Amino acid sequence: LSSIHPFWLTKAAPHYKPHGSKRGKKSITVLAACSAFLSSSSFAPTSPQAADLTIERNPACKPKPDPSTLLFGKQFSDHMLTISWSEKGGWEAPEIKPFQNLSLHPATSALHYSIELFEGMKAFRGFDNHIRLFRPMLNMERMHRSAERSCLPLFDKNELLECIKKLVEVDQEWVPYSQTASLYIRPTFIGTEPSLGVARPGKAMIFVIVGPVGPYFATGSFNPVSLLADPSFVRAWKGGVGAYKMGGNYGPTIAVQNEAQKRGCQQVLWLYEEEEQITEVGTMNLFIYWTNTKGERELVTPPLDGIILPGVTRQSLLDLSRSWGEFKVTECTVNMKELLDALDAGRVLEMFGAGTACVVCPVGSLLYKGKTYQIPTMQNGPDLAKRFYTELTDIQVSLLHV
Amino acid sequence: LSSIHPFWLTKAAPHYKPHGSKRGKKSITVLAACSAFLSSSSFAPTSPQAADLTIERNPACKPKPDPSTLLFGKQFSDHMLTISWSEKGGWEAPEIKPFQNLSLHPATSALHYSIELFEGMKAFRGFDNHIRLFRPMLNMERMHRSAERSCLPLFDKNELLECIKKLVEVDQEWVPYSQTASLYIRPTFIGTEPSLGVARPGKAMIFVIVGPVGPYFATGSFNPVSLLADPSFVRAWKGGVGAYKMGGNYGPTIAVQNEAQKRGCQQVLWLYEEEEQITEVGTMNLFIYWTNTKGERELVTPPLDGIILPGVTRQSLLDLSRSWGEFKVTECTVNMKELLDALDAGRVLEMFGAGTACVVCPVGSLLYKGKTYQIPTMQNGPDLAKRFYTELTDIQVSLLHV
Repeated sequence: LSSIHPFWLTKAAPHYKPHGSKRGKKSITVLAACSAFLSSSSFAPTSPQAADLTIERNPACKPKPDPSTLLFGKQFSDHMLTISWSEKGGWEAPEIKPFQNLSLHPATSALHYSIELFEGMKAFRGFDNHIRLFRPMLNMERMHRSAERSCLPLFDKNELLECIKKLVEVDQEWVPYSQTASLYIRPTFIGTEPSLGVARPGKAMIFVIVGPVGPYFATGSFNPVSLLADPSFVRAWKGGVGAYKMGGNYGPTIAVQNEAQKRGCQQVLWLYEEEEQITEVGTMNLFIYWTNTKGERELVTPPLDGIILPGVTRQSLLDLSRSWGEFKVTECTVNMKELLDALDAGRVLEMFGAGTACVVCPVGSLLYKGKTYQIPTMQNGPDLAKRFYTELTDIQVSLLHV
Repeated sequence: LSSIHPFWLTKAAPHYKPHGSKRGKKSITVLAACSAFLSSSSFAPTSPQAADLTIERNPACKPKPDPSTLLFGKQFSDHMLTISWSEKGGWEAPEIKPFQNLSLHPATSALHYSIELFEGMKAFRGFDNHIRLFRPMLNMERMHRSAERSCLPLFDKNELLECIKKLVEVDQEWVPYSQTASLYIRPTFIGTEPSLGVARPGKAMIFVIVGPVGPYFATGSFNPVSLLADPSFVRAWKGGVGAYKMGGNYGPTIAVQNEAQKRGCQQVLWLYEEEEQITEVGTMNLFIYWTNTKGERELVTPPLDGIILPGVTRQSLLDLSRSWGEFKVTECTVNMKELLDALDAGRVLEMFGAGTACVVCPVGSLLYKGKTYQIPTMQNGPDLAKRFYTELTDIQVSLLHV
């Protein structure tokens, strides 16, 4: 796991290099420094090469939607990126082409054995009309780790990112002219082996689709969610793949999410083991801001111990709050009993989920063993959650680099 | 979980009804009684209807391969079955059409969140040239349970089985003229929702592909496999979905299987929890035939406690051996320590995997914490494994019903 240096926090980041303008339009730059890790594979070409990218323009571009009407993940842009790989031929030239259906052999290994992984990232249009990706190398690094765990071919993270930036450039008019909406980017990597053995696929494909998404919350008006905490549902386990963004971690959560709704809750608080470790909330990482048993003000989130998804927003909140130096910031396990004790003692200030879709999502209550526990997140502002939201969205849309 | 009555063991099964011949060719019958369970759904039509099935014949049928050259899952027949569903329109008419690629929206929920499940079953050509499916209603019942857990729409199991039988009938020349080869049937069920929220899909598709497969072993010449038993790899866990045939249970095993091969083993013995419960082997259920600590001859397999896949072969071996009444047959947890103690005391007779692909697969050795343990399965015949193999394959290809 490569270390993530918080260059993105320094307003004059030493590694920051504007990409240069092209054809009079604003080009795309990234907010984080890129490590120069070169991935290896035993087959040639060992990575997609951005220099080989071909572009077939869509002759029938769609009208762009009003940013105020956007839902999550329902609309897509005019183009997509596809990169095919085979064991014999290695990586083919990346292609940007009109958004279209995929033609897949019915034995495609992604459809049978879930040899599939994805990423979620966003491009923002700033006040300066400049388009920025938020710490995309963190997504490329996680995608690379997921690929390795999935026995999918490896790739050069910088080359893939260059291809994704090119797609965003081609579809730049799809990046909403809005400070609250953004372009969601979904890199996806699937095994396309056309036979039925459970084995490392001999064919694979990366494809990237993008689409405009609205604000999860109108600024300042957080809606707190209610959580079902039932230890009989387990999201991930030690020795499994919960730390990777693999498709199989998501499908099984839908029935549990539906069960939460049946019981009057909006999301699931995922517990683990007999001691009921608090792990994640819905598809987000979880943060608790409290006064700990030593009387210290502390922000806590579960550690990356194999069952926690290493979220980019999670990492960013840790980096931000550590840079402030105003309170203790801890990655450690918290059990239900510790949380309930803290609630009982009035020590909990805020509890919130963190993810790319919402940035932060306040928690208002917990349903646990038939009893509802109120969480005073909203009563406390939520000062910290709002500060995180404001700081991150400012970084995403503001003039940081001039 | 519906109870499975072993009608298939009685040579004049009371529920057995030959399907009747059509167009002078042998029709397809099933070896098991079908329960009349009608599934419900809040949308109409609530199930695919076999009576609505349409057939588009392939004008360019391929030559059939020599049964002696067959590999697993590499070749497919001339036709496939597809049945589409949408929240608005319910189930569409089932279609049998030429084998072809699927055209899928790039946001298809199966490709992102692994909303996907499958079944594996076989059609056999008997000595009488009659084609039989082996206990297919057990597959339909498991598929129905997997669909429910996956938040995919429910279906009438009998109607789906009728459609599958029709596909096998259309492609009946692909059922090998061989008593050791068979036609592998792969029902697959995927979410095809074309948007990115992690939610119950509004579109879905069942598709079924079939292809001829060879014998896993030439009769009588079992090849014992070596297993890696490493507690750091966990296949499934309580509160998860290990008991369902969902794609996400399979992809993550490939890297572990590769690790086993790196350490000189052929398959993985999956352990669970601190006490190292023995759960499954590779993608098969596991059986141990031993003299237990009370001195009784006993066949043991792990119970269906949520982390074990309820295999059709597993159930059939339990049913068969219970019908013999010659030794104790037990579904209970066995830990590594209990197995090693039994090996040390010379009480282990045979250990084997059980699954649709191989029927039974003898285990020859275990690599555990750096030490290799020999399992005397082959030295003991393996009498029981061979008897199971012979009885099951006899049932599959013999004249039982005349």
